[in-house]
Amino acid sequence: MKRTLSFPRVSRRALLSTAAVQPSLPGLIAATAADAQAPAGVLTSWNDGPAKQAILDFVHATIDQASPSYVPADDRVATFDQDGTLWVEHPIYTQAMFALDRVRVLAPAHPGWKNDEPFKTVLSGDFADVGHFTEKDWTEIIGATHAGMTTDEFLDIAKQWLETAKHPRFKRLYTELVYQPMFEVLDYLRASDFDTYIVTGGGQEFVRVYSQRVYGIPPEQVVGSSIVTKYEMKDGKPVLMRLPKVFFVDDHDGKAIGINLFIGKRPHAAFGNSDGDREMLEWTAAGNGARLKMLHHDDAEREYAYGPAGDLPDTKVGTFSVSLMEEAKARDWTVISMKNDWKRIFSFE
Amino acid sequence: MKRTLSFPRVSRRALLSTAAVQPSLPGLIAATAADAQAPAGVLTSWNDGPAKQAILDFVHATIDQASPSYVPADDRVATFDQDGTLWVEHPIYTQAMFALDRVRVLAPAHPGWKNDEPFKTVLSGDFADVGHFTEKDWTEIIGATHAGMTTDEFLDIAKQWLETAKHPRFKRLYTELVYQPMFEVLDYLRASDFDTYIVTGGGQEFVRVYSQRVYGIPPEQVVGSSIVTKYEMKDGKPVLMRLPKVFFVDDHDGKAIGINLFIGKRPHAAFGNSDGDREMLEWTAAGNGARLKMLHHDDAEREYAYGPAGDLPDTKVGTFSVSLMEEAKARDWTVISMKNDWKRIFSFE
Repeated sequence: MKRTLSFPRVSRRALLSTAAVQPSLPGLIAATAADAQAPAGVLTSWNDGPAKQAILDFVHATIDQASPSYVPADDRVATFDQDGTLWVEHPIYTQAMFALDRVRVLAPAHPGWKNDEPFKTVLSGDFADVGHFTEKDWTEIIGATHAGMTTDEFLDIAKQWLETAKHPRFKRLYTELVYQPMFEVLDYLRASDFDTYIVTGGGQEFVRVYSQRVYGIPPEQVVGSSIVTKYEMKDGKPVLMRLPKVFFVDDHDGKAIGINLFIGKRPHAAFGNSDGDREMLEWTAAGNGARLKMLHHDDAEREYAYGPAGDLPDTKVGTFSVSLMEEAKARDWTVISMKNDWKRIFSFE
Repeated sequence: MKRTLSFPRVSRRALLSTAAVQPSLPGLIAATAADAQAPAGVLTSWNDGPAKQAILDFVHATIDQASPSYVPADDRVATFDQDGTLWVEHPIYTQAMFALDRVRVLAPAHPGWKNDEPFKTVLSGDFADVGHFTEKDWTEIIGATHAGMTTDEFLDIAKQWLETAKHPRFKRLYTELVYQPMFEVLDYLRASDFDTYIVTGGGQEFVRVYSQRVYGIPPEQVVGSSIVTKYEMKDGKPVLMRLPKVFFVDDHDGKAIGINLFIGKRPHAAFGNSDGDREMLEWTAAGNGARLKMLHHDDAEREYAYGPAGDLPDTKVGTFSVSLMEEAKARDWTVISMKNDWKRIFSFE
């Protein structure tokens, strides 16, 4: 069973993102080995090969004071796309699933939705048609489900949903569907004094609900898309109201812009899986010294295969175009094969 | 000599910001005292009094695990306005001075400026008239001096200026005009595991040029106003071009919005000195547990006095209205008297 649902065509410009409960690797040893061997307990879910070696070589080159590519600890920044890079994005971004569920919850208070698109389609439960939604449709859905409340109220709603909603294929909480090998990369980099940032096309506020718990990444290290908020007094206390208006789209060129805006440092390592990550990878690659640029995907058996290696023509989630693969090859970016480089995909396997 | 120049009327909505070489306090001892006494070497430029005591009590209450107001280290956030709070903002914001100097440098390439306002006034050297500039005037000046170049080019220009330009009254580099007592607060809070953020109405990119060197605050902990940037390829390498268009104004309500957007945590302590800081202080105060909210200004002798305690009616820099002072009293925010609470203003005294 490759796909249980014939899904989306979700535009990132409209859709503002996505989550996994992960055990922390105990006793991670900071990598100070004299050669680029994996220290004990590091990257244990990775098969030996060029991808794993690229990570080991990069860390070794940047933390070894004798290396020409040595990077002072204060400048060590690594950025990670989320959807499809840190966790599953098929058959639809988790945050889109959240939005669709919210439409159903809110429907009784909006009787008109039964006749109005795109809500009518959502309420019909015909997910095949959701795949044809336009950017405008998604903007309406996001406006109806992600705005009109305070930031605190939104955080509560998202948190409750994430504690109960399950993935249609894996029948697990979305927050369990983090890629274990990527979790090990996060841990390894942090043990090597890197700050690990999520740089996602998804909604910054949504991801911040679980980023600390799931990835060990605090709110201030989540850069994402956002809507406009408005400062208001409510019962004598200030609140931030979420308005149905896009503020910043952290995708494609927005990822390079967002990195400069929120971090103000150029990453030394960046991980992505789709065309939306191209500019982040280019921006990272354009710095001097050792730079690690990685992309992945291709395991239809254990997860999904799409992009150049894929067989999911109906979906627009995480588009990985042939041109991006060509750029990766031309610029010598490392491409991770989930199928060949990863011993396991999830921690529960 | 109170003022050497009869200056500005600088609008923050138009002006995007500002900079001090500070020695680091050696051997700061993390405060773990059983009572709220100053640990050795802490807040040495502060006179004993309610302001100093408020800081000591706050830190004690938040870091002591036995305290009902204990805050886990990961949640310890303190935010600081910059202009007038961490360094001198009179007779005009440092960044405004930078912008005016840039107009003079760029003038030969813009012969029309000799006849066009607001450039004509800037080039005339009549600073009294600069005080009458409107928001539109400042937007034009910022557009002409802060945009039309890459982010890297801007950083270089700002860095060079800061290394040479001197304050008209103090005849020192702007980066030397940091308030020593506030530097001690930053250091004390960091020694107590607080993350110390600058939250400025000034330009984020400008402040990031020197924030690490001057305040020990890294770029990612500077939240400020920004203009739109555009991702472009230049000679095969990606650059971010600065466009003459405001993206985000981190002042007044923008400070609460910016804190949520960039940090995603509510501060436990906030320091400001003007009406532009009101919402940041309110937002901080609205959280549960111990919250420290501080405002200051009133030393005409050693620095400047303005606001309710002041005598600078011609300036709009750092407006500290009577209503803000009333709110501070009503809400029990601590008001620092530079005159009475600080033994010295600058490190070079």
